[in-house]
Amino acid sequence: MDKTKVAIVGLGTVGSGVARLLLDHGDRTARHAGRTLWLEKAVVRDLSRARGCDLPQGVLTDDLTTVLDDPEIKVVAQLIGGLEPARSIMLQLLEAGKDVVTANKALLADHGPELFDRARALGRCIAFEAAVAGGVPIITNVSQCFSANQIQSVQGILNGTSNFIASQMDQHGWSYDQALKAAQELGFAEADPSMDVDGTDAAQKLAILAHLAFGARVHWSEIPRVGIDTLDAKDLQFASKLGFRIKLIAHARLVAEGLELCVAPTLVRKGQPLAEVQANYNAITVVGDAVGDVFFHGQGAGQMPTASAVVADMIDVAVGREQITFQTLELWSQRESRVRIRAVDDLPGRYYMRFRVVDEPGVMAKITNILGQEQLSIASIIQHETAPEDVSQTVQLVIMTHEASEGAARKAVERIMQLPIVHGPSVRLRVMQDRLASR
Amino acid sequence: MDKTKVAIVGLGTVGSGVARLLLDHGDRTARHAGRTLWLEKAVVRDLSRARGCDLPQGVLTDDLTTVLDDPEIKVVAQLIGGLEPARSIMLQLLEAGKDVVTANKALLADHGPELFDRARALGRCIAFEAAVAGGVPIITNVSQCFSANQIQSVQGILNGTSNFIASQMDQHGWSYDQALKAAQELGFAEADPSMDVDGTDAAQKLAILAHLAFGARVHWSEIPRVGIDTLDAKDLQFASKLGFRIKLIAHARLVAEGLELCVAPTLVRKGQPLAEVQANYNAITVVGDAVGDVFFHGQGAGQMPTASAVVADMIDVAVGREQITFQTLELWSQRESRVRIRAVDDLPGRYYMRFRVVDEPGVMAKITNILGQEQLSIASIIQHETAPEDVSQTVQLVIMTHEASEGAARKAVERIMQLPIVHGPSVRLRVMQDRLASR
Repeated sequence: MDKTKVAIVGLGTVGSGVARLLLDHGDRTARHAGRTLWLEKAVVRDLSRARGCDLPQGVLTDDLTTVLDDPEIKVVAQLIGGLEPARSIMLQLLEAGKDVVTANKALLADHGPELFDRARALGRCIAFEAAVAGGVPIITNVSQCFSANQIQSVQGILNGTSNFIASQMDQHGWSYDQALKAAQELGFAEADPSMDVDGTDAAQKLAILAHLAFGARVHWSEIPRVGIDTLDAKDLQFASKLGFRIKLIAHARLVAEGLELCVAPTLVRKGQPLAEVQANYNAITVVGDAVGDVFFHGQGAGQMPTASAVVADMIDVAVGREQITFQTLELWSQRESRVRIRAVDDLPGRYYMRFRVVDEPGVMAKITNILGQEQLSIASIIQHETAPEDVSQTVQLVIMTHEASEGAARKAVERIMQLPIVHGPSVRLRVMQDRLASR
Repeated sequence: MDKTKVAIVGLGTVGSGVARLLLDHGDRTARHAGRTLWLEKAVVRDLSRARGCDLPQGVLTDDLTTVLDDPEIKVVAQLIGGLEPARSIMLQLLEAGKDVVTANKALLADHGPELFDRARALGRCIAFEAAVAGGVPIITNVSQCFSANQIQSVQGILNGTSNFIASQMDQHGWSYDQALKAAQELGFAEADPSMDVDGTDAAQKLAILAHLAFGARVHWSEIPRVGIDTLDAKDLQFASKLGFRIKLIAHARLVAEGLELCVAPTLVRKGQPLAEVQANYNAITVVGDAVGDVFFHGQGAGQMPTASAVVADMIDVAVGREQITFQTLELWSQRESRVRIRAVDDLPGRYYMRFRVVDEPGVMAKITNILGQEQLSIASIIQHETAPEDVSQTVQLVIMTHEASEGAARKAVERIMQLPIVHGPSVRLRVMQDRLASR
């Protein structure tokens, strides 16, 4: 049987998983590629570190040139995290004539245009299924399977750490800090979880999907984002009473006025597929104008789910499928954006608001006056009775609005917070429309 | 821009949808294929029939040779249902050098080996994403995206008509006949729905997935199947009280002893994704040893979802991706089956059983005796009190067993039904394991 020599650069968790699939299950890659994917080299920085996999003699090296200078190594899985040296190595690999597979979404989100242009100029390709939603093959589905559609919306739970934390807060009534600690103990959150919990990671993935699905030329830092690190357990409880769960939703929707993009903790009605996503799972609903709504749910991270996506990409590259896809995608090309991004203040939405107000006559009128002036129509109000032990003489007021603009909602809350009757921080959360973006 | 000439054979519901996507949305196919897919001919049997789409002058024809004899037409969507003349036309198209896209699962399920061998011999390809689960791209996901995995199980709701009927019975307490009538009025069931409701359609789709996911060389008629046409509304109600819904599940699971395959109405615990699939939707859970469980949910039929899958296939063929996939799949080749199919009596499962029994002492002992003799262990028993107006002096006895073999369960029910204390038909349904086939 023919063989294609391949290499791995970076032998961390995912890299070790990829090595295992290649070494222990060569029959699978042979069956799907019609040839053996032969692991020739695995490049690491520090040869002395313990590895999660046994490699045959001569495979492990700390010398990248053994890969760069071997013209028989055609496909390289570049599995180093962060921006540098990941970027430089990626460019070196492309210049050396390698096709590259990566799981590094931060690298693509920041340097996608440079890397993709260089790959195109060199006649090479970059595959990145593992960069978004891990084992859920959303990249292939959006860029290939739904190609006959105008995609109308993509709604996703794209950060497993955030979903684990929000789910634990919901189920156990835990505070954010308690849930984060549990996530760290179970390995679902890193020691420094900031990129996950502040919405950055989800925004980076959403930017990649927005490129693919809508032809948007958007940098992730332009996407308005709020993380779950500001969530209060009280709001999960009030939302639950109203029939909702709170999920960190990455939202992209194409409307006549442009493309809406944001990442925010969002109330999703119980029973809706996205509301029921538990633990560290990822999930995405794609709506296309022909296919309707298609929902995907699976492991968004972790060693073997991510390795599964990387090896599938390596097979796609080895058989030549990925080269075709890469050429037709025009992803991150210098082409103009096919869509305009809507300003954040223009984004429509329903809102959940919570205020801590003094328990005295006239309070409700003052608040509803401001909402009215800002064109916010009220769907429901719940005033929660103060617990007997609460001596603050304040009550929690929860308001659900009808659809309004983000700008109006923001301004209304800012004005309400300036009222002397309002104590402490207020909360404003987006509410997902039940049949969002459906036809 | 380059163009690839394409044709459609059969301009029914799906064919009209495909024509619309090609004619009205050429920018999409151009963007994803890097060339225009140019609809050159649409072949129909009867020129006088009204069509669901307007075609440019000269496209509509009743002469297949205008397609066969035009060497510039490279890709043909063959959208005629049934076995003949669909099979002969498919062979003619392949012989004439065309790559073929089809949505005809019955044709593939019956004549797959012949058609695929012929295509391979001629260097042509057949694409069939639309043949299973309509708009849900399960063929691409199983055969391409999960290629690094040993797939361990595939559980699917693959027939939208059955799911619509079962959901209506569950929600409204309707009888099978009432729900079927509603489905027919709403266009979710055909005038003769037998292939849908007796499990044939789901078994045909499962056979295709079993080929792809497990390398099984199985004909659909070898798959044990029970349809929803035998469902009694009472069992939906009893199941609901026990915390389950009843869905028509197509089951494939690989275990050490071989591949389990069956199609049957199955109790699925509420809250499990497959339990919550509503209306005419399809859904599939795939478990791979690397990727874990991935769940897909979407429109399994209908004009535009199916057309979406057909046109995506046409693009894959036009750019050359499908030819690569087709060569590497070895689908329906003469190769030996990679797996042994387990005998139906050996399939393990938990069972829901319902008997109508005389309300007198000693009845329970007689029934539980037989269950014990057949090695069936009881998980729970509920005896439902007779309604006051019921003069039959019988009661409904519902038994949930622990895991046992299909053969033992079948034999136990046969023996129990011969007891004089048992009146009327008995019911035996499979119960899905909560973490079926998980690692």
